[in-house]
Amino acid sequence: MQKVIDAVGPHFDQYVADLKEFLEQPSVSTREETAADVAACADWLAGHLRSSGFTMAEVVATDRHPIVRAEHIVSPDLPTILAYGHYDVQPAEPLEKWTTPPFEPAIRDGNIYARGAVDDKGQMMMIVKAVEAHAQAQTPLPVNIRAIFEGEEEIGSPSLEPFIRDHRDWLTGDALLVCDTALPERNTPAITVALRGMSYLQVDLRAGRRDMHSGAYGGAAVNVLHVLGDIISRLHDEDGRVTIPGFYDNANDVDESVRKEIARLDYDEDKWREASGGAVARPESGYTVPEVTRIRPCIDVNGVWGGYTGDGAKTVIPYEAHVKLSARLVNHQDPIEIYEKIKAWVEEQVPAGLDVSISLLGTGKPVEVPSDSPPMQAARRAMHDSFGSEPLMLRGSGSIPVVAMFADNLKTDTILMGFGLNSDGIHAPDECFGLDRYRLGIETAIRFLHHCADLKSGV
Amino acid sequence: MQKVIDAVGPHFDQYVADLKEFLEQPSVSTREETAADVAACADWLAGHLRSSGFTMAEVVATDRHPIVRAEHIVSPDLPTILAYGHYDVQPAEPLEKWTTPPFEPAIRDGNIYARGAVDDKGQMMMIVKAVEAHAQAQTPLPVNIRAIFEGEEEIGSPSLEPFIRDHRDWLTGDALLVCDTALPERNTPAITVALRGMSYLQVDLRAGRRDMHSGAYGGAAVNVLHVLGDIISRLHDEDGRVTIPGFYDNANDVDESVRKEIARLDYDEDKWREASGGAVARPESGYTVPEVTRIRPCIDVNGVWGGYTGDGAKTVIPYEAHVKLSARLVNHQDPIEIYEKIKAWVEEQVPAGLDVSISLLGTGKPVEVPSDSPPMQAARRAMHDSFGSEPLMLRGSGSIPVVAMFADNLKTDTILMGFGLNSDGIHAPDECFGLDRYRLGIETAIRFLHHCADLKSGV
Repeated sequence: MQKVIDAVGPHFDQYVADLKEFLEQPSVSTREETAADVAACADWLAGHLRSSGFTMAEVVATDRHPIVRAEHIVSPDLPTILAYGHYDVQPAEPLEKWTTPPFEPAIRDGNIYARGAVDDKGQMMMIVKAVEAHAQAQTPLPVNIRAIFEGEEEIGSPSLEPFIRDHRDWLTGDALLVCDTALPERNTPAITVALRGMSYLQVDLRAGRRDMHSGAYGGAAVNVLHVLGDIISRLHDEDGRVTIPGFYDNANDVDESVRKEIARLDYDEDKWREASGGAVARPESGYTVPEVTRIRPCIDVNGVWGGYTGDGAKTVIPYEAHVKLSARLVNHQDPIEIYEKIKAWVEEQVPAGLDVSISLLGTGKPVEVPSDSPPMQAARRAMHDSFGSEPLMLRGSGSIPVVAMFADNLKTDTILMGFGLNSDGIHAPDECFGLDRYRLGIETAIRFLHHCADLKSGV
Repeated sequence: MQKVIDAVGPHFDQYVADLKEFLEQPSVSTREETAADVAACADWLAGHLRSSGFTMAEVVATDRHPIVRAEHIVSPDLPTILAYGHYDVQPAEPLEKWTTPPFEPAIRDGNIYARGAVDDKGQMMMIVKAVEAHAQAQTPLPVNIRAIFEGEEEIGSPSLEPFIRDHRDWLTGDALLVCDTALPERNTPAITVALRGMSYLQVDLRAGRRDMHSGAYGGAAVNVLHVLGDIISRLHDEDGRVTIPGFYDNANDVDESVRKEIARLDYDEDKWREASGGAVARPESGYTVPEVTRIRPCIDVNGVWGGYTGDGAKTVIPYEAHVKLSARLVNHQDPIEIYEKIKAWVEEQVPAGLDVSISLLGTGKPVEVPSDSPPMQAARRAMHDSFGSEPLMLRGSGSIPVVAMFADNLKTDTILMGFGLNSDGIHAPDECFGLDRYRLGIETAIRFLHHCADLKSGV
């Protein structure tokens, strides 16, 4: 194992150059018009996997963006580790807020800046480079590897479940490694043992057929933007609790030991604010900031638009208004049930005579993984070796809907071992990944694979 | 006079063709990038005025969009009528909502459809064609005419007051005719005796320096879109009254006779809804729809934007949010004082730690004009002749800030004689003007000029 880790240093510049090439691909999955860019990125990735030591890598077409699958099979007698990552990225807008262009990766102060740097291209590549380091060290892999890299994670992974169904035999393994989560601090090792789920909705309001003049109708006609304001304002009470009936059903069974584990985090509001880029803390009443993002569900509005938004003044009462909003879910909250509760509640807020249409844009179930399984023991050892201290077993605040999907479809323990930081600005301008963490992630992945060699199983 | 009115019929097709040419000019004043289009429209207009019987017409440069001034002086012994109109138009967005393109005038079912059809190019041209009809009838004008057509009405007329100051002597007259208001119904003659004032503001909210991931920060950080919702929602109470302290100061002296005059209107909610394009009525508690738009002040949100507004889902908590809003004012409400009250109130709604910046985008004072002055008598006679019944003397719901400016600067009675309808869709897609009203407006303007011949004054 040490021989493989020793190979990382001499090749690390090349690993960074490869990541840069990967980050140059504008693989934004959200928009129809960039589908060709996503496909081009898949082709690049499959080629790169073949040249990095995988014995097979292929692009699998789906209804929308392709999945890249790859494997390196050493022996049917060895355990098989599945790996998941995604090569698609969030839109990069607002472009003018980036210090350097989002698809022209730039290194500053030890970080690489680009859309996807940490979410998830940089973290995905840690697994790829862990495999490649074995070839470079002329050391056989201690396990078999099968990797799935999808291009639809940022749009809710619609093609993944059919893919899993079609490749059920191929997807047999002893653990699933996912590198798409964050550390609480740069020097605090942690493994994520839960993820929040998600329901993402769009609300479209309409009053009549065309905009009205605000002089002729001001004060007399229902203004959809006032209705939009009412809906948003009524979502929460003064304690920051969601007011939608039944929202907290199946979300209240917080274990005191979980709160104690979270309390071990070295939380400092100033540091938290700085890492976020200036967020103002206002957690739900009765919970700390670290608690609220890990064990509590919430609803946030993600976008609004309606009426005149150009320069200057236009005296209009618009007839259309739009809201995007999403709920983060915990424990046993079901995304579809939550969607239905939000939908029913929003419909009740809309005055008679207006049209409202509510659509579901994405879902993901909340996830919890066992913290004492054999692969988790391997991950804990790997993290301990890399950081010199025992990792925290932490609930995460984000959502990776595919993890729930894998849990539902595969009989495999999932290991959420990520090296992001909140200050990396994922989904935001100037997203970045520390090159020190990229290297540590590669080394930790190598250690994980070796500690997995004892797992009892085969292909 | 009849000879001039008789000349309208044979030339009406040409008057429509001229209006079409005028409407083809995309003279949107709001945006810097269309300044050349506005200037081109001013040049076209000055040329058209010269060929329509005006003895002088010139383009006067200002700091932004030019003013076109013109005159036809018959004799220093005759009264002089000032006329005001505006050749600039509102932006045409959303373009996809137009049946035919906004700057390609189209005639359907007796209406001409184009941006500016009724506000104000079509109505402005009624005055121009009333002058031209005299030349065509080989009949001398019974009065002198001086006309001011500005290109900044839709952006608050910043250059008009300096222009008035620089042309004070030239602007001496016995009445000021403004054709930029509406009839309550197609067959109900009315003259507008009051206009609502306006304060138009933009609110820019900011929390921190960059967007945040809604997983990592959801439930813990202040979401500016929630603050936006709170501000909008708190603007009004359940009775539809504005909650801003002091908002109704100087606005409450409604005369019972005014409410009686409004009650004479043949208001029907279904017809009102149809004319608006589908508005849902919800007037301030204690007032009818026709009352609320004529005698009550109000606040409406005109536009909102913030966060992700593209296709699909983006899990972001934005750091910026924006609101455009405007107040309509009555009686003695002062637009600057109202702006300051709104500003102070909005600032109080914003949680500590957020930045808020509030800017004033336009103002106009409320206006009332005497309903029994000699020029008003001339206007009443003209309307009576055209419609066969006595016109209502109505308070209007819109704002024409320049009318207050003229009242402050010129010692002249203003006559607000307009032929629009609420169903014309001003400031909205498919704005239109009925050709029957265009013609009736020309004929009424001719009658008005002749009834003004008795006014005692000279150049």
